[in-house]
This record gives sequence, C-alpha cells and structure tokens, in this order.
Amino acid sequence: MAFASSFSSRKPSPISNEDNSVDSSSATPGWKRKDTRAKRKRREDARSDPGRLDANSALMATNYYGAAKAIFSDNPLGLTCGMVCPTSDLCVGGCNLYASEEGPINIGGLQQFATEVFKHMKIPQILPPEVLPVSQRHQSYISSKVALIGCGPASISCATFLARLGYVNLTIFEKQNYIGGLSSSEIPQYRLPYDVVDFEIALMQDLGVKIETGRALSTSDLTINVTISNMFASQKLKEEGYNAIFIGIGMPDPKVIKVFEGLTEEQGFYTSKGFLPRVAKASKAGMCACKSSLPSLHGNVIVLGAGDTAFDCATSALRCGAKRVFVVFRKGFTNIRAVPEEMELAREEKCEFLPFLSPRQVFVKGDRLTGMEFCRTEQDNQGNWIEDEEQTIRLKADFVISAFGSTIANSDVLKAMEPVRLTPHGTVEVDEETMATSELGVFCGGDLGGTAETTVESVNDGKTAAWHMHRYIQQKYGLGTPETPRLPKFYTPIDLVDISVEMCGLKFENPFGLASAPPTTSSSMIHRAFEQGWGFALTKTFSLDKDLVTNVSPRIIRGTTSGHTYGPGQGSFLNIELISEKTMAYWLQSITELKKDYPEKASSIMCGFNEQDWTELAKAAEAAGADALELNLSCPHGMGERGMGLACGQNPQLVKGICKWVRKAVKIPFFAKLTPNVTDITEIAIAAKEGGADGVTATNTVSGLMGLRGDGSAWPAVGKEKRTTYGGVSGNAIRPIALRDVSAIAKVLPGYPILATGGIDSADAGMQFLHAGASVLQVCSAIQNQDFTVVEDYILGLKTLLYLETLQELKSWNGQSPPTFKHQLGKPIHHHEQNLPHFGPYLKKRHELLRKEKVKLDLLSGDLLPAPARPSYRPQKPIPQVKDVIGRALPMIGSYGDLDNTQQVVALIDEDMCINCGKCYLACNDAGYQAISFDSKTHIPHVTEDCTGCTLCLSVCPIIDCITMVKRVIPYTPKRGIPVVSMKGITADSGKSQ
Amino acid sequence: MAFASSFSSRKPSPISNEDNSVDSSSATPGWKRKDTRAKRKRREDARSDPGRLDANSALMATNYYGAAKAIFSDNPLGLTCGMVCPTSDLCVGGCNLYASEEGPINIGGLQQFATEVFKHMKIPQILPPEVLPVSQRHQSYISSKVALIGCGPASISCATFLARLGYVNLTIFEKQNYIGGLSSSEIPQYRLPYDVVDFEIALMQDLGVKIETGRALSTSDLTINVTISNMFASQKLKEEGYNAIFIGIGMPDPKVIKVFEGLTEEQGFYTSKGFLPRVAKASKAGMCACKSSLPSLHGNVIVLGAGDTAFDCATSALRCGAKRVFVVFRKGFTNIRAVPEEMELAREEKCEFLPFLSPRQVFVKGDRLTGMEFCRTEQDNQGNWIEDEEQTIRLKADFVISAFGSTIANSDVLKAMEPVRLTPHGTVEVDEETMATSELGVFCGGDLGGTAETTVESVNDGKTAAWHMHRYIQQKYGLGTPETPRLPKFYTPIDLVDISVEMCGLKFENPFGLASAPPTTSSSMIHRAFEQGWGFALTKTFSLDKDLVTNVSPRIIRGTTSGHTYGPGQGSFLNIELISEKTMAYWLQSITELKKDYPEKASSIMCGFNEQDWTELAKAAEAAGADALELNLSCPHGMGERGMGLACGQNPQLVKGICKWVRKAVKIPFFAKLTPNVTDITEIAIAAKEGGADGVTATNTVSGLMGLRGDGSAWPAVGKEKRTTYGGVSGNAIRPIALRDVSAIAKVLPGYPILATGGIDSADAGMQFLHAGASVLQVCSAIQNQDFTVVEDYILGLKTLLYLETLQELKSWNGQSPPTFKHQLGKPIHHHEQNLPHFGPYLKKRHELLRKEKVKLDLLSGDLLPAPARPSYRPQKPIPQVKDVIGRALPMIGSYGDLDNTQQVVALIDEDMCINCGKCYLACNDAGYQAISFDSKTHIPHVTEDCTGCTLCLSVCPIIDCITMVKRVIPYTPKRGIPVVSMKGITADSGKSQ
Repeated sequence: MAFASSFSSRKPSPISNEDNSVDSSSATPGWKRKDTRAKRKRREDARSDPGRLDANSALMATNYYGAAKAIFSDNPLGLTCGMVCPTSDLCVGGCNLYASEEGPINIGGLQQFATEVFKHMKIPQILPPEVLPVSQRHQSYISSKVALIGCGPASISCATFLARLGYVNLTIFEKQNYIGGLSSSEIPQYRLPYDVVDFEIALMQDLGVKIETGRALSTSDLTINVTISNMFASQKLKEEGYNAIFIGIGMPDPKVIKVFEGLTEEQGFYTSKGFLPRVAKASKAGMCACKSSLPSLHGNVIVLGAGDTAFDCATSALRCGAKRVFVVFRKGFTNIRAVPEEMELAREEKCEFLPFLSPRQVFVKGDRLTGMEFCRTEQDNQGNWIEDEEQTIRLKADFVISAFGSTIANSDVLKAMEPVRLTPHGTVEVDEETMATSELGVFCGGDLGGTAETTVESVNDGKTAAWHMHRYIQQKYGLGTPETPRLPKFYTPIDLVDISVEMCGLKFENPFGLASAPPTTSSSMIHRAFEQGWGFALTKTFSLDKDLVTNVSPRIIRGTTSGHTYGPGQGSFLNIELISEKTMAYWLQSITELKKDYPEKASSIMCGFNEQDWTELAKAAEAAGADALELNLSCPHGMGERGMGLACGQNPQLVKGICKWVRKAVKIPFFAKLTPNVTDITEIAIAAKEGGADGVTATNTVSGLMGLRGDGSAWPAVGKEKRTTYGGVSGNAIRPIALRDVSAIAKVLPGYPILATGGIDSADAGMQFLHAGASVLQVCSAIQNQDFTVVEDYILGLKTLLYLETLQELKSWNGQSPPTFKHQLGKPIHHHEQNLPHFGPYLKKRHELLRKEKVKLDLLSGDLLPAPARPSYRPQKPIPQVKDVIGRALPMIGSYGDLDNTQQVVALIDEDMCINCGKCYLACNDAGYQAISFDSKTHIPHVTEDCTGCTLCLSVCPIIDCITMVKRVIPYTPKRGIPVVSMKGITADSGKSQ
Repeated sequence: MAFASSFSSRKPSPISNEDNSVDSSSATPGWKRKDTRAKRKRREDARSDPGRLDANSALMATNYYGAAKAIFSDNPLGLTCGMVCPTSDLCVGGCNLYASEEGPINIGGLQQFATEVFKHMKIPQILPPEVLPVSQRHQSYISSKVALIGCGPASISCATFLARLGYVNLTIFEKQNYIGGLSSSEIPQYRLPYDVVDFEIALMQDLGVKIETGRALSTSDLTINVTISNMFASQKLKEEGYNAIFIGIGMPDPKVIKVFEGLTEEQGFYTSKGFLPRVAKASKAGMCACKSSLPSLHGNVIVLGAGDTAFDCATSALRCGAKRVFVVFRKGFTNIRAVPEEMELAREEKCEFLPFLSPRQVFVKGDRLTGMEFCRTEQDNQGNWIEDEEQTIRLKADFVISAFGSTIANSDVLKAMEPVRLTPHGTVEVDEETMATSELGVFCGGDLGGTAETTVESVNDGKTAAWHMHRYIQQKYGLGTPETPRLPKFYTPIDLVDISVEMCGLKFENPFGLASAPPTTSSSMIHRAFEQGWGFALTKTFSLDKDLVTNVSPRIIRGTTSGHTYGPGQGSFLNIELISEKTMAYWLQSITELKKDYPEKASSIMCGFNEQDWTELAKAAEAAGADALELNLSCPHGMGERGMGLACGQNPQLVKGICKWVRKAVKIPFFAKLTPNVTDITEIAIAAKEGGADGVTATNTVSGLMGLRGDGSAWPAVGKEKRTTYGGVSGNAIRPIALRDVSAIAKVLPGYPILATGGIDSADAGMQFLHAGASVLQVCSAIQNQDFTVVEDYILGLKTLLYLETLQELKSWNGQSPPTFKHQLGKPIHHHEQNLPHFGPYLKKRHELLRKEKVKLDLLSGDLLPAPARPSYRPQKPIPQVKDVIGRALPMIGSYGDLDNTQQVVALIDEDMCINCGKCYLACNDAGYQAISFDSKTHIPHVTEDCTGCTLCLSVCPIIDCITMVKRVIPYTPKRGIPVVSMKGITADSGKSQ
C-alpha cells in the first residue's frame, strides 16, 4: 500500500508487524523498506511510525478504513498521535515532496482524518484471525496474569498488543478516577478532545482488557515486590499471581525549582501538573464525573518553560481569564523545545515571549504573589550558558505557572516500586531493547522509562515491552518465540468480509485483476502481482511470431488534462504502445509456469491476441494451460493498420466471425475486448455473444491526440521528424465513457459477463463498475501511476464498502465518506440569527459573537457530551456478496424520456458555509439564468425565483456541499421569451418531455 | 479577466485605469467592482492593487503576458512589489479562498511569476494606442517640462504614467550614481535582485523618460524656488522652465537616538542607512561601477528596531560575517511591524530576538564598542508603555546597527526644498488626494510624503501625483481633464497584433466565439458577451414550436475526474440539458436585434436547429438576419430519442440529406455540428460536405455516465425515483478526443472550414486546435467555469503566442512558458561533482558545499552579471496571422506506420533536480521494464541499459523536466523472452513496424 510520494529518512520501528519483513537486500525505496534489525537508536525508531506512510496511499484511494487499519496496526493511539505529535518535525518535515510544486503531504493531518472517519464508523476491534479460539489456545495465554500500572499511552499500547497476541488476563490499574493518563489530564481539550482518548481505550477494551480505576502504585495498594510484606492493604502484584508487570505511570510530580518552594495555588502559583489537570477536569466533557470549574485567572500570568507543556499552559491560561501571558524561558528562540505549531498557536493568541531569563525570586505581598525577578542568561564564545546574577529583570505577575517538566518524587510511590532500580536522573533503569527493568518480569515505559519524549515514543515503549513480556511469559512456559518480533495487526469484522467472485466457472478470490497492458509485460511481473494479492491477470496481448512487433519510443505519456503531477490525482495516460514484443513461445511457457505456481489463484491466466490465425493461437494458449482467453479486438493504434485490433473490432460482422472461429477451436471461456471508439458498442457486444464469446471486456482506450506544443509539435513525437499518431487515452479521465459502455452492454445483455476496465483506481471506482453491471474489474493506469500494491486498498476498500451497507446508522454516508457537516476549514460553524459573511469586518463580528456564546457555555453540560465510543454499530442484515451488488444501478439508468420534468429542483446556498467568493453568481450570470443576486457589500449570494435548477452553481462552488439542490415547491414554467404562437397538439410547458 | 477565486476586502485605488469604471449600482463581486470614488483612506487604497486580481485569471490561462499587462497597467513596479510587499498581510491575507480546502491563492507569488516571465520576454513598453503621434499631439504634451527628483519607486511610477499620457519632456534627477532609490540601496539582493530594478526602469525609459544621475536637491544644484537666486551652480527648476516638479527623494537620513551620538563605523556602529547601501554596492552586480566590498563584521551584532529594515540588517549582518545576531526591540512580539515572512527568514537563519528593551548606553573600550545597556519596557494596565530605568540589561556586542527608521535632516536639502512647507513630523505637507505640496506645481510622494509605508504605497503616490500633475499642466494650457481619473494602461507591440480571421466570407475580429450552449441561453447574454469582446456567437439551438422542450433538473454537473474543485483546474462538466426552452419567435427577433446592435461584430450570429422541417426553420433564420447557420446534428441526450440530434448525426446518409435540404433553402453559409460518438467522424464530415455544408463544427459532447454513489445511485438523479441517463461530457477532459476529430477531418478534407470546440479554455488550447486545422474556436465549459471575461485572456494570449514566434531568442520556449532551468523549489541548483541526494544528511552536505562555494564567489564578477534589460528583442520576421498557423501540426500527425522504430529514446534523470522519491523506480518496476535501479541508502535512481524509452517514468515524476527522453545511441533490440523460432519473411527486430 505504500505510496511513492512520502518518505522518511528516519529508521523504521524495531518492532515490525506480522508481514513487514521483506528481503532487505533488494533495493526498495525507503518508505517501502521494512527493516527488521533491532539495533537502532530508539528515539529515532518511535518516530518513524511506518503505518503512517502505508496509510497515505489508502487515503488517496478513499479507503479510510484501510488507512486507519494501517495506522492502528502499528500504533494503537494513531488518532491521538495524529493530533498531538510534532509532525512538522517528524513525518511531514521529512517528506520528499517538500521540494515539489505541491509541497509535502500533510501526513499528520491525513492520519488524523482517516482515524477520525473510522472512529465515526463505530466498528469494534477483533482478535486477529491467527489467534485460536480460547478453547484451543495454549494455557500460557489463558493463565498468565499481566498487570499494567497507569492507564496512559504506554500501558494502552502494551495491553493492546498483548491482547492481540491472545492474552486474556490483562488488567490496567489507574490511580485517578479517569483514564487516559497525560492525554486526558494535561493536553488541552482543543488539542486532544476527550472522546478521542475514550475511543482508543474502547478499541483496547474490545479485546477484553480490564481497567480498574482508583488503584495506585502505593505501599497501601499496589506494590511490585513480594518482600514488602507488612503492609495491610497492599496488593502485592507478583504474589497475587501476576506473571508480568508493566509500569507506565509517567512522571506524576512537578519539577519545582528552589525559588518556588512553599508557594501555593492560593497565592497564585501553579505548576503545570497542578494547573492543566484542573483545566482538563473542567473542560473535558465525559472525562470524569467531577463537576469542577476552570481555575480563575486574571491580569498578568507568567509561564516558565519552553516545552509543549509551557505553551499548553499559556494558551490555557488565556482561556482561564488571563489578560496577558508571558512565556519566559532560559535560552533563546533557537533553543525552544516546543514544536513550531504549538508556539505559533501561542503567538496567534497574543502570548508574549521573553527569552534569556532565569528565575531568581518571587515577590509576595500579603497572601498573593505580585511578580518575579529573573537574571539574564547568555552564551559565552565557547557556547556555554552563563547566568549573570548582576543583570536582573522584574516582571509584575498575578499568577505564575511553572512548566519545568516533571519527575517522580513521592516516596510512597518509590517505595511501592522497590526493588526496581532507578537511574541517577530518577527514571527507571530499563534495557532499551526490551523495556525490561532490573526486576525479572517487570517492564516499564513512557515518561518513567526515561527515553520517551512524545506520545508516539511512549506508544512505542509499550509496543516494545509487549513483545518482550510475551517472550518472557512464553519462556516461562518453556515455549519459544520467533527471533524477529512479529506483532499482530489491527483487525475488525471488515477484514473477514468475503469478496470472492465467480464468472464462467472461474473463481477469483477478489474481482481485481491486471488488464492486458504494460503491468503484464513479463511473466515475472505477473508473478509479483499475484504475490501482492491480485485476483487474476491477462497477459499482454501476444501474437504469432510472424506478426511480432517492435515499439517506438517515447510512447506512454501523461494526460494533459490532469490536476496534480503526482499521485492518484493524476488521472490520465495516453499511449501508443503496441502489443507484446515477446514471442509466442515465451508466453506459452510463461502461462504453463504461472499455472504451476498459482494453481488456484491463477485459474485466471488469460491471453489476448490478434489475426486470422486465431485457431492456432487459441489452441496453443489453451494447451499451455490458460484458463480463459481474451481476444484483443480493439488496440486503437498501430495494429489496426495491419488489419488487426481496432480495425476488426469496429465491425460487428468481423467480431462475430472471429468469435465463431475461436469458439470452434477451444473449450475454455473466452472474452472479446471491445473498443469504445464505435458508434454503438452494444452492437459489437451482441455480435461477440452471437459468435459464442463467453463475455466481453469493456473497454479498451479511447482514441485521442494529446496537446500540441506552442510550435505545433506533438508529444509523444517520434524521431527527429517528430512524428506522432493518435493514441489511446486511459485512466480515470475515460471513466465516464467506460461506465456508459459497461452499463449500456449490461442493459442490453442482462447477465452477460463483462470484464470492466477504464479508470478503476479505487474500490469506490470498482464498485461503480459493479453497480453498472461489471462482473470483474481490470486495472492498468492506476498501477502505472503507483505499483502493484494498490490492490491491497482495492481489496480492503471493497470489503469496507460491503460491510458498511449493513450498518443502519451510516445510511447517510457515501461509501466510506461521512456526510459533510456545516463547517469552515473543518471547524463547525455556529449559526447566527443575522447572516454574516466570512471575510473582513464581518468575520471579526462572527468571532466576537462566537466568543460571547462560548463564555455562556457550560462546558460539562450534557448537550456537549460527545457520542460515546461504545456500543459499536452492529450489522442489521447479512453482509452482501459481490454478486449481490452487480448491476444494482441499472434500473435507474434509462433513456432521457424516462426522466420526469415535473419533478424539478432549485439551488439552496448554505449561508454559513459560503465563503462569499462570488463564483456561483458569475457562473449563473454568464452561463445560466441570472438567478443569483450578489450583495455588493456583504457579498452574500441569494438564489432568486428565476432558478431553473440547472445545477451549474453547485458544480463550480469551491466549497463541498455548500450548495445543495432541493425540491422545487412551486411548478416550473420555462421562460419562453416570446409566448408560443400556435401549439398544435402539444402542451410544451407541462408534462414530461417525450 | 477577473477570476472569481480571489477577493480583497480593501478598497480599490482612487486612480482607476481607463476602462475600469462600471456602473457601481449593479451588484458585482468585490474584485470586479472598480469603484471610482476618490474619497478613500489612502493607506488602504494603495494596497488593493487591482491589477493583481485581474492577473490571477490570466495566469490560470497561462497568459503570462496578459497577467503582466494587468499588473503593470496598475503598477509600473509590479515585479518589485510582488517580491517585497507584505502579501500575507495584504492580498493573500484577504483572499476568500483561505477557507477552501486548497487555501488562499498565492497572489504575491503569482504576481512575481508573471512579471518575471514577461521580463524574460524582453519586450519593450510602447505608448498607448490612444496617444497621438508627436506631430499631432497637443503643445501641452510637447512643451511641458517635468522634473522628478530622486529615482525611486514614487518617481518611476509618476514618470511612467506621465509618459503614458503623452508627455515627452520628463527628467528624473538622482543624486547617487545608481538608480532605483531604496529598492537598490537598502533592500538586500536576495530579496530584490538589482536586475529587477533595472528592468522596471528600462520599461519606463522605453517611453522616453530621461534620467540624470549625480544630480541632487541641493542649494548647489537643484532648488525648487526661483527666489533663491544667489547660488552660483543652482539649477532653479521652475526658472528653467519646469512646469511641474515631483519630489520623491525619500527620507535620506537615519534617525539616530541620543545614545548613539558621536559613534562611528570604525568603532563598530552603523545605521541602517549606512550599512545597507554598503552591502548593496558590494553585492548587487550591475548596480554601479563601484568595485566595493562587503562590510566586514564578526562576533556579536546587535540590531535595533522591529521593522523590515531591522530584519534586513540582521540577515545581511550574518552574510557579512557576524557570528550571532540579536534583534532588540522596544515592544513585544505582538507589536512587531515587520511582515511575518521577514521575521521568519531571520528566525530560520538563527537570529535571536530580544523584546521589551530600550537602549540606554553604549560601552566603548579603546577605539571599539564592546556592548550596550538597555532598560526594560513594559505596559501598564492602561496599555501605556513604561520604561523602567532601574531594570537594566547589558549585552556584549562587537557591532551595533541602528534601524530606527529614517528622516530628513540635511539642512542644505531642506533649504533647497524651500518654500515647500513641512509638517511637524518633518515630512512634506501634501494634499492626500492629489499629492500636491503647498507650492503650486510642486508635488511630492513616497516616504517624504508621509503616508507611504511600503513600496506599493509609494508607487500609488507617484500614480496619484501623475494624474494631478497632468491636470495641473492641462489647466495651465486652458484644457480640461475628465472628472474621473483615467490613467492609460501598459502596452507593448503585442497588443497591436492582428488576430482577425475570415471564414466563408464572414470576418471575425478574433477567432473566439460562444458555442451553442448554456452561455447563449438568452439574447441578453449574447449582448453582454459581445461587449466583452467575443468574436461571434451561436445561439442556443432552437426548434419549431411544436418541438419545444422543458428541461429536467438537476442537469449540469461537475465532472468527477477533476482535480481542484475551483478554477480552471476543474476541467470537466457533464450535462443532460436540452436545446433552448425559448420559442422560435423569440430567437428570430433576437437575431434581428443583435444584428442591429452589432452590425459588424455580429456578422456571425448563427442558430443551430433540428428536425425535418429544416426548410422552414432555415429560411426563417436567414430572413431574421443570421449570418450563418449551425445544424445541431449531435445533441447526445434527449433529442435523439425524438429522432433529432445524435440519432441523425451518426448516420452519414441522413446528414447528407439534411444538408442538401438546407442548402436548397438558404444562401447564407451553414455548418453541421458533429458528434464524436461515432466510429469514424470523417465519414460524417465528408457526408456534410457532399450535402453542401460550408463546414463542420467538431465536436459536440462525448457521451458518458458520471460516477455512481456508494449506494449505486447516480448524479444527476431526477425526481424521487433518482433516475438518470447518459449525458454529455464537456471541457478539457475531452480535449484529446476533440483534437483527434478536428485533425482527422482536416487531414481528410484539407481547407474545409472547421469550427472547433471541446476543451478550449485558453489561448494555448485554442492554438492547439488551430494547429490541428480549426478555422475558428467555440467555447462553453470555460465560461461555465468562470464568466465571459475569459475572452480577454484568449485574445491577448493568442496575440502573445503569435508575437513570440517572431523572436529568435525565445525559440526554446513553449508558448509563453520559458524552458525549465535546473532548480529545486524554484531555486537554482549548484551541481556538485559528487551526486548528493536532496534529503536528510545529504541535503545538509549539499548546503555546506554550497556555502563554501559562495564564500569564494566574487559577487561583482562579470560572470554573475544578469542579462541587461535592454536592448529588447525585436521581431526577426513578420508576425504570423491566424490563417498562417491553421493546420501547421497536420503534416506531423500520421498513421502509426509512419513512425520510425529505429529512432529510439531512453530516459535521462537529472540527478540535481531529482527529489529521490522513488516514483520512477516503482512505475518502471511494476508497469515497465525494471530498467531503473534505486539505491537503498541514497535513494538515487539510475536508468539501466534495459530502458526501452517507454516514457512512463517521465509521466509519473512529480518534478517537471527532471526526467527527459534522449536519443538512444546504441540500437534497440527488444527482449523477446524466448527467441523467435522461425521468422519467415520478416525481420522483427529491426526496421520499421509496418
């Protein structure tokens, strides 16, 4: 699924998923390489997050579930990471496309998008298919008890992977009465809403992981070691039969420097550890039952620190009433640790920054602090930082928030953790390869492990620990584990959907096959394609040796009507490539070999061919073991001039004759590949059927001439004479034509097999062809545009489309796409009584009104509660099979006369989503009915009664779903200009057109 | 030309160009409104720069000259402004598309791009066509002498507009020995290269403006007032016959605060006014003959100030050897005046920022300064700024650069300017509406005028002054000027190119007409289109009243194969709209009226129609005054079912028959509109010709079915039954098909008139159809996608394409596009011996090497001299007429057999432009010949000997022109897999395919 456009120079994770290991000796692009060597800098490792890169390709094919699956397979907190991880520093910053016109892929944003869409699907996680039922599972998975302490990212990740491996007895203990760890308590709601945390924990719970809240690592509750025996209430984990323990409690205590000692919140002093959870509890609906209120700030607030937490404190402080916020830090701007996005947000919100200052003193007057003194820092010529005690600065302040990081200081917790060894820095001593602590069976990760600095790194800690806890447990049972870590992927009921198809007695595991085209240039390519999962393949058309061809070059060019110059957005190719340059002997041998290697899968090897010696060729192919044949009657260039291809395919008599010959020659099914370059393709299809063909392939490429350069020369241009000829247009640019051909044939010859091709570049597009009557689907251009791996998206995408049909709750979705909600730039719009445009002073006014509304808002009120992650949606009917959807659209596709011109629509502009650009007004004015007015001041468009429902405004509006067509309530009377003089016999203004 | 996507909430300039005034009572979108009221806040005015917005549309149509013309018409320093003006604050910041998926249009970048491309065309400015030859021009233009003092943006603008008005005696006096003012002396070369200044001044000089350098406003040289009489060398401007004077000398002196008094450059103290010109003289090749070197800095440098100049000083200081640069300013970040782009650049280059500090003292040791002391500033609760003298900070420094702005202090200059009155702020007192000073006939603008803060505002000062100086001069001659300012546009020889065409005795002023389609729904729309400049129009097809139709809705939808959802990038529509709903009587009357209003222009009113009553309809249309008729034999939906349109257009016999009837009925020319939905369109064209048609229209829409939704429902879907039918695909998605049809007909029927249509959305596309054999060009979809104004771009674009053909120097251009130079992200690449990839550590290494090379560079060496702006390129042959280019591509378009398969090519990857994404490797591997290797570490692709020249790698590469196809030097031998067993009679591996 890896898509070529994105690349990270960082190393992949040491913990690979099940099928991630490939031969590393072959030179594959960085983002495809799944290196399994474990010896890596761990910091770098966690950041690579290979699932992200696989996911991009899935997204481009609108396979959002596929993208989410790739992400969650590698990272159970994929949505959280997409929202909070410093992508500009990580994946996006490393994207090769940075240097292209279009710029880098917004990988973090896409990750967030895909996983959010999947979240709304409300589909549960299930155990991987390779995990045996409980009754058949080995004792080690059933009896082993695993305790995970602290319900934050590291534990959630660890527990998820252990559960996927098949362990049934997993308990997370959390000391708070809410779960999620730092994601819940410290990251503000506007950066990471609580329902995201809730969702990812629900996915973990789907696998049976238990959570106990109010349970802490403490001498009075949970302790690690059995030897602390004199505590009354202590639950000694090992003693109680926990075979393995994971400690992921983070760093629960703030680092407080000396100058703040003894200061209290009442005096106006907060630590980030005290401040942010208070903000969270008061602003995160659903997080806990506590009905608390935001800390009440005012006046000047000083925030100390230069990390993400400091900026979270600063922006939160503004929301808590601060008038001015100063972020003060010891070094300069070039040393800020926070990600640019965070700092930018603070700057936009008008926080001020003060660099080169180190805290020295807090001033207190009465029971409130009043300000602080700092001394100046600077770097000497050697680069050492010096604090100049003589140079001091004072700042007035009503509140001070210290965000100097966190530590573990509580002696009771430390005691409960004994005898786990700590480092001099106060973190737990861990083996960085395994996350094992000094104590056998006890593992640790996340902040407390000492190496993780971001959420994604904590997740990786938990993932690494999961594998080694598994290995530890299995060893205890005397069982081995693979040398190379193999952690199971993310699965849902979607993965179990059956998409196999049968056509003419041939059974394919999925309906996607390779068209007879450049991707089947050689048999080794077909081999590789089958490995990748393609359902069938057509060899490149081959001929008798006397007709052997030699290509010209250049010959395959980019369509000139495309958008972006990379990726699936580029829709079209044009080629003047001929049939195979390889000999008949080569192909006959290849067919035999392929049948041997893929006896089941390759039940679908076919060959297309030409010329009158059909009998010889067809018999030879059948003898070689081909399961079926495709007759190429449609190659639009080169061959026709030899009386082959197009030349015979445009003539029904010739088509019928050829089919008859072949029918006589072979027993296996055969299909005629048709050209769209005819007046009526159904006439040719009927001829093929009458000739005995078992079905048709629709369609070959559309004949066209690419653009001419300024000087009149063409491209492709062959030789120094720069000659050209008409070539074949392929790709999604011709999809409307191919859909017409497929549906027209399906309507004329109901049930007759059609192998569809022409712009299939996703499961969505494939589904359209199935709906239009196709039996199976052939692909070429999309592979040219990427590689064989696209089929993974098509398979999973099709499974998803079929599964989603069973969910009543998603009826309003279009495939995998949820309906558009009212938004601007993805943010919900608050509707105001008065219609305000979205620019200039009006926009300001909008923001003001919104602010006022928000102040009145009770953040914890039930109205604002997000939909709970569970119960998940369950199928309300059997999952359809591919054959059930074939031809589903045909009844609605008819002649123009079937359309009812008494049921009219008119345009409705959503004023909240409108960006006041005037595009609809322009189009309606110069190419429509002058039925939209446009306010010269507010730029608000208004649809008048003159609207005829032509839909042009919708078709040019840059905002998706801003304009919709709604039913016309009053009858439509066309403006005839001058009334009809005489209307003999017909009433033109009413009734259906005929 | 205005394109809907961009919009500014700011007011337009008070000085409108010649045709900018439209009826402001009609509601037109903001960016179309050209309000002429003069009473405006001037500051806002200068910023709107309406030319920018018109230019966007031209750019989208690859009409770069048109874009440049729109820009330079409003702003003679358009390129400078595109490069240095704060666009994120101005146009881009106000773009409505900010809220779309695609984000705001990069208006500043596009402005720079268009004007830079035009710069490379080296085409001179000429006087507007409305200016009479000198011999016929009024005395006032010949005799009036105008002096402009200071050769900066304000004077250049003022002189340009005066010259365009027809004044011949204009002299700019400049005290320096270089020209350009602040653009040359203060803005660094990397933000504004000197050749840009040189280019814009050359455009002004093209109109005859004279420049004298070494001439200063001084009591010893130029003085304003005649009454200062006792100076020896003084040139008293008014006394010497200068009728009007413009003072645009800027603010020549630095503002120096008290603490810096007496400090010298030798001690390490610079002002920006001293520092930046020294940098400029040493780094701007071509600016002056002075062979000077950069100021030599080292160690810590303090820059004081928060404006653009401060950041220019900071980034320049780094280039002059500074180790660390601190930008120190009095207020906070939220008060920085510099544009974000500038500050971001400084931050990227690791400048440090110190806010809230006010300078107090400079420390000097021996003959060098060693540091500075600052006191702290803060805002009290009322928002007042307070300087706290007790809180001080010291910074070590080796150099200090003060960038506290500029003033005018030189008493001799002030004396020379007398009696012009000054304001208390030291600027010249001006009337903000006219830029007149207290002295009659003396005007002032730019920095010295007191209101301009940016280059674009200075340009507007000069423009405003130009109009009022013109009015002043004309009044002196007793002549009036229009109440509403009308300044002439920018013109070049391109504007004079003749693009008229003649076809069947009909003469059109340009070949672009409206197709019979939604844009010709009513006669008032055709009226408006003619006003806009369209060459001809076809009415929407009308019928006899008994065949009157009523449309269904929805019926015109966006093609699903498009890229962006707005603008010309969206290529395709699909419609199921029928012929006109209006009566025959309406159209007959409309034709008569249109002929009356546009007797010459509308020599081309035509009507298309249907049915067997051809005679009646044709005779009626001829009688109504139509110049020609178009027979719609091709409407692909609805009508065919009635036996009209497509149904008859697919049958050569029927076509011939209908044409014969019409030929008999009328004398005027008529054309048959053909459908592409036939096996062989040439057969139909021949039939039309044989039937007596004077030509054909090729082609109507291509039949297709748009995508189906996830549930199988279609779009458009009519009524509650959601029925659909096949519709017509239009727009540039079908251009390859239309080009094939046009060229095929042109080859079969040489010289036979063809009215081409199908994806003409620019002059470029139009030119392709002409090259393919079209006589004239019809447009519909592009209008649907924007409005009638697109024709301005087509007209000017076509003129440009024809003109450029005469310039030998631009032979390597493709139309208006210069060849791609070696670059990454638009920046030139330095080639290194060792091939280094463009990512990660390799990219760092590249940067290091580049830095080393740059240090060795002699910035003023002749090698680095940019090409001089003049002499301009001159036509070396007559400018072709449209008829000269028709059919030019036809000889190269032939059958496949004409292509030579012994002349092969192979791919060549430019390693410097490669972004190492792996896309070529992937495509070649899975859909090609496995002929590209990919280094697993460096990600450098390498083309092997297996390359067959198929060109797929080029077609998927995201970087334009990174891969090129070059001639294969060794003979090509196809890989046959298994050798040919018997080759009776033919040698497949060599020779041309047959």
